[in-house]
Amino acid sequence: MITVLSGGVGAARLLRALSDVMDPSQITAVVNVGDDVVMHGLTICPDLDTIIYTLAGLNNDELGWGLSGETWRVMRELEALGGEAWFQLGDRDLATHLYRSQRLSEGATKTEVTMELASRLGVAARVLPVTNDSVATEFVTEHGRLSFQEYFVRHHHDVVVQAIEIVGAPEACATPEVLSALRDASRLIIAPSNPLISIDPILRIPGVREIVRERRDDVVAVSPLIGGQALKGPAARLLGELGYEVSTLGVVDFYEGLVGTWIIDEADTHLADEVRRRGVRVEVTTTIMAEADNAQRLAKVVLS
Amino acid sequence: MITVLSGGVGAARLLRALSDVMDPSQITAVVNVGDDVVMHGLTICPDLDTIIYTLAGLNNDELGWGLSGETWRVMRELEALGGEAWFQLGDRDLATHLYRSQRLSEGATKTEVTMELASRLGVAARVLPVTNDSVATEFVTEHGRLSFQEYFVRHHHDVVVQAIEIVGAPEACATPEVLSALRDASRLIIAPSNPLISIDPILRIPGVREIVRERRDDVVAVSPLIGGQALKGPAARLLGELGYEVSTLGVVDFYEGLVGTWIIDEADTHLADEVRRRGVRVEVTTTIMAEADNAQRLAKVVLS
Repeated sequence: MITVLSGGVGAARLLRALSDVMDPSQITAVVNVGDDVVMHGLTICPDLDTIIYTLAGLNNDELGWGLSGETWRVMRELEALGGEAWFQLGDRDLATHLYRSQRLSEGATKTEVTMELASRLGVAARVLPVTNDSVATEFVTEHGRLSFQEYFVRHHHDVVVQAIEIVGAPEACATPEVLSALRDASRLIIAPSNPLISIDPILRIPGVREIVRERRDDVVAVSPLIGGQALKGPAARLLGELGYEVSTLGVVDFYEGLVGTWIIDEADTHLADEVRRRGVRVEVTTTIMAEADNAQRLAKVVLS
Repeated sequence: MITVLSGGVGAARLLRALSDVMDPSQITAVVNVGDDVVMHGLTICPDLDTIIYTLAGLNNDELGWGLSGETWRVMRELEALGGEAWFQLGDRDLATHLYRSQRLSEGATKTEVTMELASRLGVAARVLPVTNDSVATEFVTEHGRLSFQEYFVRHHHDVVVQAIEIVGAPEACATPEVLSALRDASRLIIAPSNPLISIDPILRIPGVREIVRERRDDVVAVSPLIGGQALKGPAARLLGELGYEVSTLGVVDFYEGLVGTWIIDEADTHLADEVRRRGVRVEVTTTIMAEADNAQRLAKVVLS
C-alpha cells in the first residue's frame, strides 16, 4: 500500500503511471483542497476532479484540464447573461459539481462524495480529500488579497506574491482515512505538484506534517522543477518570490526534514551531490511524464 | 400602471398578452416564490423564470416550460453519475440558475437578480419577487410532507393533499417595491394561476392581502378554471381536496372579499349570475390564451 500527497495535474499523471505498474487498489491519493471554491453556488474541487478524471481516462489532454469531449453551452449562456464566466466550467464538468453540491447539501462529507464519484467513474485507486473541512489557499499580492482561483485563473498567476496563507488549515481536521493512509502505507510519495500551493496546504492540516516527518525514511519526493522550471504553473516563480532558490534545491529546502529519497530530473544531474549533502538519498531519472513509458519508468523508480 | 399577482405559465401568458396591448413598462408582475428551491446548490425560481422567459419570447412552447432551443448535456451527465436528475434543468436554463446563485452569494437580493436577468433578456415589464425572504410551499399528503417540487414534479401532483402550508410566509417581508406596486397601480389583476399554490403564497406575505382587500374595487381576477377544469396543473383537484367547490365558484369563494370584478370563461356563462350574487361584477369572455388574438382580447377585457 502506498500513499501519494497530491495536487492536480502533475500528481494525476504520476498516479496514472503508478496505476499502470501496480495494483491501483493499493494506491491512496491524499489530495489538496485549498483550491476548492464555491462558485455559482457550486462546490468545485479542482485537484480532486483532475485526479479522478485522469485516473478514469476522461481527462482532456488538449486543454490540460477538465474532461474530454467537453461542451460549453452553459458557460456561453452565462456569458450572454453577463455572468461571471472567467472560471470555465464545461457542461460535463458541471454535472460533477451539481452532484457534489447536492450530496454535500444532503449532509454527505467531501470524502464520501469523492469516493462516490470515483467509484461511479470506475477509478480503482482510493482518492481522499485531506480534510472534510473548509480550507482556502489565499495570496497576499501587489493587487491585494486574492483567492486561489482569482490568482490562478483570473490573473493567470501573473502577479507578485508576498505571502501565501492557508486559511482554515490550523482548525481543520485530517480525516481518519487520511491519517491511516499516512500511517499504514509502506511508502509515502510526494507528487511533483507545486510545493507551496498544492502540497503545503496538505502538510498544514494538523497531524499530517508530523506523520510525514516521523516516516521520513519511507518518504519519496519527485521534484516538480526541471532545470529550474516547472512544466506548468507558477512553482518556480513563487519559490523565488518567497525567498527560496529557484531550482530543485529550493524545493528540497522547502521540504526539509520530511523526505528520505529525492527523485530529480536528468537535467538536474549536476545538483545530485548538493542534494545528497543535505542527508537524503537521490535518484536521477526522466521526470517528464508526457509519454506513457517515461511516466511508467518514473513510477517504477518511485516504487523501487 | 397595473400590477399583476402572478404564478407561472398562466400568468406569463396573460402578462405577454397585456404587454401586447399596452406599454409593457407600465406593467408590474408580483411573483410567487413559494416554489423556489435550492437544488444542487443552485437557487431556482420557477415562476420568476417562466415569466421572464415568456416575456422575453424565449419560452419553450413544445415543453410548456423552460427555454426554447434547450439542450440537456449536464442532466444527461448528472444522470450517468447517479445524481438526482428528476428535476430537469436544461443547459441554457442552468446558466440562469448559476447567474442567480452567484449574485445571491455576493449579497444581491432576489429582487435585484430578477431585475438584472429581466433587463439582460430584454424584458420591458417590471418583474418582482413578492419577497426577498425564503418562503416554501409544502404539502401534507398521504405520502407525508412533500416540498413543492417533490409534489409537483417528482409525484406529478398525483397524490392526495390534506393541507398546504406556506412555510416562512408569516415572517417574510414584502419588498418596498412590491408594496408600492400594489398601492400605486390603477388596477390590480389576479392572474389565472393556481389560487392555492401560486397566488395564496403571495397573499400570505404580511401586508399583501390587506392592500388587495382595501383595493378590492380595483381588483380584477381571471378564473383559472374553465368548465370545472384547469388547463394545466392540479388547481381543480386541490380545490376539491381542500373543501372548495370544483368550479369557478370555488375559486370565487377562495378569494372572497378580495376581488371587485371576475372574468370567467364562456364555458362558465351559466355561473355568472351565481358569481354576481356574491356582490362582484362579472365579465364573460374566452379565457383560453393559446391563440395570441384570444389572449389579447382577454387582456383588453382585463384592462377595460
